[in-house]
Amino acid sequence: MRIGILGSGGVGQALGTRLANLGHDVTLGAREAANPRVVLWAEAHDARCGTFADAAAGAELVINATAGQHSVAAVELAGGNPAFAGTVLLDVSNPIDISDSGLRLTVVNTDSVGERLQRALPDARVVKSLNTVNGTVMVEPTLVPGHHTMFVAGDDAAAKATVTGLLREFGWPEEDILDLGGIVEARAMEMYLPLWISIMKATGGNLAFNINVVLG
Amino acid sequence: MRIGILGSGGVGQALGTRLANLGHDVTLGAREAANPRVVLWAEAHDARCGTFADAAAGAELVINATAGQHSVAAVELAGGNPAFAGTVLLDVSNPIDISDSGLRLTVVNTDSVGERLQRALPDARVVKSLNTVNGTVMVEPTLVPGHHTMFVAGDDAAAKATVTGLLREFGWPEEDILDLGGIVEARAMEMYLPLWISIMKATGGNLAFNINVVLG
Repeated sequence: MRIGILGSGGVGQALGTRLANLGHDVTLGAREAANPRVVLWAEAHDARCGTFADAAAGAELVINATAGQHSVAAVELAGGNPAFAGTVLLDVSNPIDISDSGLRLTVVNTDSVGERLQRALPDARVVKSLNTVNGTVMVEPTLVPGHHTMFVAGDDAAAKATVTGLLREFGWPEEDILDLGGIVEARAMEMYLPLWISIMKATGGNLAFNINVVLG
Repeated sequence: MRIGILGSGGVGQALGTRLANLGHDVTLGAREAANPRVVLWAEAHDARCGTFADAAAGAELVINATAGQHSVAAVELAGGNPAFAGTVLLDVSNPIDISDSGLRLTVVNTDSVGERLQRALPDARVVKSLNTVNGTVMVEPTLVPGHHTMFVAGDDAAAKATVTGLLREFGWPEEDILDLGGIVEARAMEMYLPLWISIMKATGGNLAFNINVVLG
């Protein structure tokens, strides 16, 4: 599959590396093209790199791996709604702002990055997933032993099926993938992030963990 | 232990019934004393009932089981800071507002009910716990099979130890209790609630579930 990734930080590179290793045609998009770090990554992984617009152009699936507070601006730089018509946009971002006064979400409670992206790109098919785990766990769920849960949400069932297929390529078992419903559920998924950070701090800074939904 | 419970709804009664069965001296406090439903409950469970102030008076531990958006008003009705000096206040509430426009938290992101209670009652020792599961699971964790996690947060270590002791009486194994730190962590615990509701809806309305933190 031809996949564009918006965001060349740790999460974007983790996704890009795994997807390239799985044989996908990957373009990693950065705010500034010809970022030397990204060029080196592309050479090492038989992938391409460029601007956000280069990553979105012609992609069947685009992954938003930018920081959540900048994601709407990133998709506008990538070409806006016309560039994403019909495209599956997998949003893995979180709108976390960490400052001296602590952690907060820049979008919260009555809105979410997932919904903002769907409103900014009405012809895209936005699916929220993977934002509830660290980048290493996203692409290698066996780093966490036994069953643990990955959520998906989005308004388009076929787009969710495409994303679920990608999750299964990464190694997420079908029984551990929980479809929460429409893109409005991105609110709940993003509002989990403060608890993720609290758990991470309380368990010694380990990033390789997840939660498992256990039904009674 | 002499335990007062603020709030005579489903959660307050579930806690009161279990605590009375465990042999504690329980007073269930309602906004209006002599609520007939509460009087019947007290007669049936060899417990007492009264106002919020009756429940707080002389209690070693008070449980806030009122709706989160009304909790600060409830502790003021119960007598305010002088009535809670030195008392362990276990806050199990969530500030959920469900209206036609959907679900939202009335306190969120940069504050929490747990923190508001601690500020309103500087001489109380507030501990947040149990708010991440349904009332039935709070007092009977074996309704959910295997390991699943209960969080605690609060500024006073001895108060957290008292609450942890109560959790263990309910049946929570020590290894499943995760101390997140100070009362500021109540933000993260309360912001999980939208995800709890999303999971509940996605799994068919079952209330007996929880999440288990799985470390890699």
